[in-house]
Amino acid sequence: MRIAIVGGTGDIGEGLALRLAQHNDVIVGSRDAAKAEEAANNYNRILKERGMKGGIRGATNEEAARGSEVVILAVKYQVAVPTLQALDKAGALKDQIVITPIVPMTKPKLCAFTPPPCGSATKECCAVITPGIRVVSTFQTLPAPRLADLDDRLGFDVIVCADDEAAKKTVMQLVEQLGDIRAMDGGSLEEAPLIEALTPLLINLAIKNKTKPLSIKFV
Amino acid sequence: MRIAIVGGTGDIGEGLALRLAQHNDVIVGSRDAAKAEEAANNYNRILKERGMKGGIRGATNEEAARGSEVVILAVKYQVAVPTLQALDKAGALKDQIVITPIVPMTKPKLCAFTPPPCGSATKECCAVITPGIRVVSTFQTLPAPRLADLDDRLGFDVIVCADDEAAKKTVMQLVEQLGDIRAMDGGSLEEAPLIEALTPLLINLAIKNKTKPLSIKFV
Repeated sequence: MRIAIVGGTGDIGEGLALRLAQHNDVIVGSRDAAKAEEAANNYNRILKERGMKGGIRGATNEEAARGSEVVILAVKYQVAVPTLQALDKAGALKDQIVITPIVPMTKPKLCAFTPPPCGSATKECCAVITPGIRVVSTFQTLPAPRLADLDDRLGFDVIVCADDEAAKKTVMQLVEQLGDIRAMDGGSLEEAPLIEALTPLLINLAIKNKTKPLSIKFV
Repeated sequence: MRIAIVGGTGDIGEGLALRLAQHNDVIVGSRDAAKAEEAANNYNRILKERGMKGGIRGATNEEAARGSEVVILAVKYQVAVPTLQALDKAGALKDQIVITPIVPMTKPKLCAFTPPPCGSATKECCAVITPGIRVVSTFQTLPAPRLADLDDRLGFDVIVCADDEAAKKTVMQLVEQLGDIRAMDGGSLEEAPLIEALTPLLINLAIKNKTKPLSIKFV
């Protein structure tokens, strides 16, 4: 499967690229093609050193998205909507699945979940793209440094929300390619606020309890 | 420690009473003293059959709260505020720690977190009682049937939020008396919305993924 990681040069982009490249054709996107190529080269070097499958490419976000089956929006909340709008306007989004791991939050002392009036970043993303593009909300609980550490088997549960059941199933399979992870059905996009709110919670718990970056398991 | 479980005749009241009675003096409260006594007798019978420590008493909510060191508000969201107001007005709340496991939620198809304008049930409780009574927000992620099953070792993490650090520490110790549970510091009462929102999430995940009632572990 061809997967574009829009804004894939940093944060969870690195771990997603390294891990998904073992089973997929991964293209890392950036506003700056040279920056994307540099990141792709770095990722391939890491994989080569471990004797793992490489072949990650770099491109502009638009080139990465165009023709991919899955587009992961790995950018900050503040630029998520304009990034999606630009891709859609350029005709780079057609029948892809768009994955949003976006979380709207602020950090006065600890983190707070500060959703937009529509309830979630997920819904906000849905509102600005051509109706019919299938949006899937997931990955919010993946700590970037642990995802990028290929020695970490993870051992998490990851929740997936979508209105389109086929898209949800496809993404649940991708999620389980990331490591020792169980994909869990979180319901429709109406339920996205509940999973977006997990990110500030996990950050706060790690700060207050002085732990490594935390993820979640349902027991 | 003397602990009152207000509305302790059902739901998480049963499991809390059975488990906390092993280390504490537990009084189950109800609006109806006879109903509270009947529940207490049932709980003591369960404990006796297992050769465990009993001694749970039943009383009106007001009698239970008066003179207890900890008051657990084990009632539905819809009656939480009037119950607290009645206890406070009757002078039954003085220097106790009040624990709220209350969650404001609705269930159109799956559950949604529907906080009041102040942000959380926790804050709503704080607003109606005499300032200075220490409120601690916790227990939201404990599934009632698993808590009541004394063969279940649980194995959960339970988050505790409070503004008063001494009260938080006391309650974290109580939490760890419930079973194989790790109490985690969730920050101040400002952070309560993040933990109240876990309850609808856990209910939804169990429904959609057809599992037993779920709780949470941070890994």
